[in-house]
Amino acid sequence: MPDDAVEAPRDYSLKGKRPADRGLVIVNTGDGKGKSTAAFGTALRAVGSGMKVLVVQFMKGTWKYGEQEAFRRLGVEMVAMGAGFTWDTKDREKDERTAREAWDFARARMDGGEYDLVVLDEINYVLGYGFLPVEEVAAYLRRRIDEKKKGHLMLTGGNAPSTIIDVADTVTEMRKVKHAFDAGFLAARGLEF
Amino acid sequence: MPDDAVEAPRDYSLKGKRPADRGLVIVNTGDGKGKSTAAFGTALRAVGSGMKVLVVQFMKGTWKYGEQEAFRRLGVEMVAMGAGFTWDTKDREKDERTAREAWDFARARMDGGEYDLVVLDEINYVLGYGFLPVEEVAAYLRRRIDEKKKGHLMLTGGNAPSTIIDVADTVTEMRKVKHAFDAGFLAARGLEF
Repeated sequence: MPDDAVEAPRDYSLKGKRPADRGLVIVNTGDGKGKSTAAFGTALRAVGSGMKVLVVQFMKGTWKYGEQEAFRRLGVEMVAMGAGFTWDTKDREKDERTAREAWDFARARMDGGEYDLVVLDEINYVLGYGFLPVEEVAAYLRRRIDEKKKGHLMLTGGNAPSTIIDVADTVTEMRKVKHAFDAGFLAARGLEF
Repeated sequence: MPDDAVEAPRDYSLKGKRPADRGLVIVNTGDGKGKSTAAFGTALRAVGSGMKVLVVQFMKGTWKYGEQEAFRRLGVEMVAMGAGFTWDTKDREKDERTAREAWDFARARMDGGEYDLVVLDEINYVLGYGFLPVEEVAAYLRRRIDEKKKGHLMLTGGNAPSTIIDVADTVTEMRKVKHAFDAGFLAARGLEF
C-alpha cells in the first residue's frame, strides 16, 4: 500500500437506527465549492427516485442558466427570488423586503406539503446578512421537526448562522483546501456558473 | 444585525485572472456528505450549459438508481464500473484487476477528448485503498495539465491521497459537522442513495 493509503471504511452499525419519520433539515455551508451543487445533485437524485422537488434561489442570478435549463428538462421546479438585493446595507429596507418576499414564498410552498425536497439555495447568506431574522427561520425549522412534517429541506450558502446549525439534522462544511482562482484562473463557465 | 451575522462577501479582484486554457482537475474529498452529489450537481449544470458529460462510477452500486435515472433523462452518460470489488484485501488481486479495468476505461474516454467534463466518482476510495497506483494516476493528471488538455475532471471520494491533492487545481474538503445518522436516523432514500 502507498504511504498515503487509508484505512478501510468503518463498518457502521445500523443497530438502533430507524428510518427518519419526518423531513430532515440539511445544511451545506463553508467557504469551499459544492454547497449549491451538492444540493442540486441531491435534487437530481431525488427527482430520479420519483420525488417531487422545488428549488428556491434566494439570490437570483442571470448566470445560473445551466442548472435552470437542466432542472427544466427534469421537471424540477426552480424559482429564482431575491432579484432586488442591493447587498451590504446599501438599501437595508429594500433588502429586508426582498428577503421577506423570498422567505414567504418558500414557506408557503413548504407548508403546502406537496414537495419531498425543497432546496433553499443560498438562504444562509441572506440569514448571515441579517436580511431575514435568523430566530424566525430557526423557529420555523424547529416547529417542522417537532411536528414531524414530511419533506426534506436543504439550506445552502456560506456562513450559516450557528442557530441554524444547531437546529439542523445534518450539517456539512465545504472547506476550501485550494481553488483554481487562487492560481490565477477565472471561474469556468458550465462548471462554476 | 443578529450576533451571528457575518461580514459581507469579499470583493474578489479579477485583476490578473485569466480563463482556464485547459481542463481543470477538481477533487471533492472529506468525511462529510456532498462529495458525489456536488459532482452530480456540477454535471447537471454542465449539461444544462450544453457541455458533454461522462460520469464513471468506480464503485458500482445497485442503490444508485436515482442519479442513474436522472442522468439518463438528461442524456448524461453514466457508466458503473467496479462491480467486482471485494474490499479490504479479501482478494487483493481481484480488486486490483477491477480497479485497473475501471481506470483503463476512464482513461480511454478522457484521452478520446470528446467530453467537456468527466466525473471519476469515488475514485479517491479506490486510490486510498491502493487498488490503483496513486503515482500512475497523479502522473496522468500532471501530464494532462502540462499538455493543456481540454475537458475538466472531477475526482470524488473520501481520503483523497495527498499526491492527488497536490496535483489538483481545486480541492474541497466536505467536512461532517453533524449527521442525522449519529442522531439515530438511517440514510434517507432518494436523498442519500
